[in-house]
Amino acid sequence: MAYQELNETTIIDYVKTRPALTALFSSMARITAREVGDGNLNTVYILQNADNPKEGLVIKQALPYLRILGEGWKLTRERIRFETESLRLYNQYAPGLAPTIYEYDDEMSLVGMEYLGNHLIMRKALVARQRLPLFADHISTFMANTLFYTSDLYLTGLEKKTLQARFINPHLNKIQEDFVFTNPLMESPENQWNPLVDDEVQRVRTNSALKIAAAEMKASYMTHAQALIHSDLHTGSIMLNPADTRVIDSEFAFYGPMGFDVGAVLENLVLNCLSHYGHTDDPAVREEYQAYVLAMVRDVWNGFATKFEALWVANNKGELAPPQYWNWPGGEEAFADFRRRYILGILRDSAGHGGCKMLRRMMGVVSVWDISSIEDTRKRAIAERKAIRTGARWLLERSSFTTVDDLIAIVREEMT
Amino acid sequence: MAYQELNETTIIDYVKTRPALTALFSSMARITAREVGDGNLNTVYILQNADNPKEGLVIKQALPYLRILGEGWKLTRERIRFETESLRLYNQYAPGLAPTIYEYDDEMSLVGMEYLGNHLIMRKALVARQRLPLFADHISTFMANTLFYTSDLYLTGLEKKTLQARFINPHLNKIQEDFVFTNPLMESPENQWNPLVDDEVQRVRTNSALKIAAAEMKASYMTHAQALIHSDLHTGSIMLNPADTRVIDSEFAFYGPMGFDVGAVLENLVLNCLSHYGHTDDPAVREEYQAYVLAMVRDVWNGFATKFEALWVANNKGELAPPQYWNWPGGEEAFADFRRRYILGILRDSAGHGGCKMLRRMMGVVSVWDISSIEDTRKRAIAERKAIRTGARWLLERSSFTTVDDLIAIVREEMT
Repeated sequence: MAYQELNETTIIDYVKTRPALTALFSSMARITAREVGDGNLNTVYILQNADNPKEGLVIKQALPYLRILGEGWKLTRERIRFETESLRLYNQYAPGLAPTIYEYDDEMSLVGMEYLGNHLIMRKALVARQRLPLFADHISTFMANTLFYTSDLYLTGLEKKTLQARFINPHLNKIQEDFVFTNPLMESPENQWNPLVDDEVQRVRTNSALKIAAAEMKASYMTHAQALIHSDLHTGSIMLNPADTRVIDSEFAFYGPMGFDVGAVLENLVLNCLSHYGHTDDPAVREEYQAYVLAMVRDVWNGFATKFEALWVANNKGELAPPQYWNWPGGEEAFADFRRRYILGILRDSAGHGGCKMLRRMMGVVSVWDISSIEDTRKRAIAERKAIRTGARWLLERSSFTTVDDLIAIVREEMT
Repeated sequence: MAYQELNETTIIDYVKTRPALTALFSSMARITAREVGDGNLNTVYILQNADNPKEGLVIKQALPYLRILGEGWKLTRERIRFETESLRLYNQYAPGLAPTIYEYDDEMSLVGMEYLGNHLIMRKALVARQRLPLFADHISTFMANTLFYTSDLYLTGLEKKTLQARFINPHLNKIQEDFVFTNPLMESPENQWNPLVDDEVQRVRTNSALKIAAAEMKASYMTHAQALIHSDLHTGSIMLNPADTRVIDSEFAFYGPMGFDVGAVLENLVLNCLSHYGHTDDPAVREEYQAYVLAMVRDVWNGFATKFEALWVANNKGELAPPQYWNWPGGEEAFADFRRRYILGILRDSAGHGGCKMLRRMMGVVSVWDISSIEDTRKRAIAERKAIRTGARWLLERSSFTTVDDLIAIVREEMT
């Protein structure tokens, strides 16, 4: 079927032609469709059976408005492929932690996936001070599995490079390269920040050591093809409820540094922790939930590190350093030491990338809803100032970190 | 023209059908062809005009013997493309330092290039104790230009990643991955070493810190997509005479760490320096030439570092850290500091990769001719023992190096 833009009516006709999609519904007699996307580059439809609203489906289609740009339309189309292929890999390597993919139509630039009707965008849950007892376990499994199984620790060189070639993603990369690492730290017209923290912002933009460190993290992002990373794994890309966690919106996926994903989760938790200076007035309630969120930071990292290492020990099938390479008396200890050093490298990268991302949220083109939803700019400034200082220190002090407690200690110091 | 294997007769008929090749000769009446390749995967023909032997041409064709393997034939064919495309880039970015490409025939898996009749493989020149007054200048220009102009310091992200996609080269990568970093350091049937240095070899293979360091350099090779590197830049891939230098045999080219190329040149000079314990009996003559070669190590690195930085200052057009990123009072100094740190990173990588490559030549599948041509195994052992110790220390002490003199000091310590 040649490309055509679907609407709330024609999408139902389209679904009826796709057996993989009709199979989701006990009857097609009363299917409803509503568009819920932000309308930028894609439309997003939720389809439900009015006779049984539990039966649902999400369809995401690339919008054709950029078609006249040529290259732009290719970008829009291809992001649907990057998202679909990475979600399929997540389903394979981390089952249950991403929406199921039912259908991909390359011509229509369209993907059909599981409807997550009982899930909330994670930011909302955290701002509402929800308890998420399984989140740290789920997300650490997601990251350990997707990063390990796509790395040179598990895949052969040929397998890894073949997969890497499917995820050469320069247009989406550029968005992160510019808007995470560079533009927020220099004068750029799209930057926004709270005038009440202007002094902190200017200090960051003229701090030589910090600028160099950020450029080094950008070089890591641009050159360190360590694993297939999600590359936008903030708490707006996670849908959950207390029992279930799903990672979505993976169109930025490419071969990059593992720490960019891990750092994204950690820093978004920290930003939420700090946002409660604005959302939660009662000091006792606030401090208790902030401690809860910081405990998640610790549990996410420690869970990730433990699981990642366990996967490596059990599945050292890649070509980086195979079992026979460690085959001498003392070799097992050397392999263990190599794993410790490798995982420590991910921790330090996570701090560096997480630090950059914290800064960009405070002085770049787009904040996080946790913070931007604080209406009182003075309260917001309290959170923002602590976030800027924490981010700067994660970035600058990253080489000295040995455990996640070092990262958390900095947050706590800036909170007092 | 569908693929057919050419021979010394049919290749002349082939050349007559290609205007870009016939244009090289004043007359096609008396063209001679002789096959000079090692016959492994390619044939290499030198064609000359018997009436004017200065008129010549080299043709390299992939052999079809691996065709039955399917994937193997693809590998053989594609290596001609990798070589051709990288040589063309060298002609663009480092004119005069690689053979000119006259013709590429994808169907025939064939490349026609400049005949270098007045050049010697560099190893031969060094073993013969030739003076090469322009080599350090030439090779440092070659490396500075080819590495800088293919990096994120010069290309946009889109340009770099588009080029990177043309050089996904997993089959050739695997040869280096296994035979440089892993197999020589473990028990593997193809390994060869001089029994007289067996104690050194076993010490290396059971040295935990060294094994971890080599695995870290392998990770760098497998994941650090910093620039289009030659990836086999030893002194057997360089043809020269006192006035002219050309880099050949670039079929391993891919996006990898710059230090793998720079380290290859440095360590091959060191191996040649040490080989004179076998080739040059007169101590005064030997010491003088060894000092000459070590001065080349210094000049190659310092020339590279100076030229690389000058290119960067003059052409900071990439997206890693653009000029406006450094635009504040003090920004210029910060940019200079960033460049120093970046280039220091290349030095340390060069020591790490060079160290691994020195070790593999002493205990892996293939030595270097400089050393293997020493017939007296006791004399050879003198060079080999020093090479192993130097390589191990380059690798293990790389993080402490600040100038190339630190690398040279280690060679000198092991020579005394």
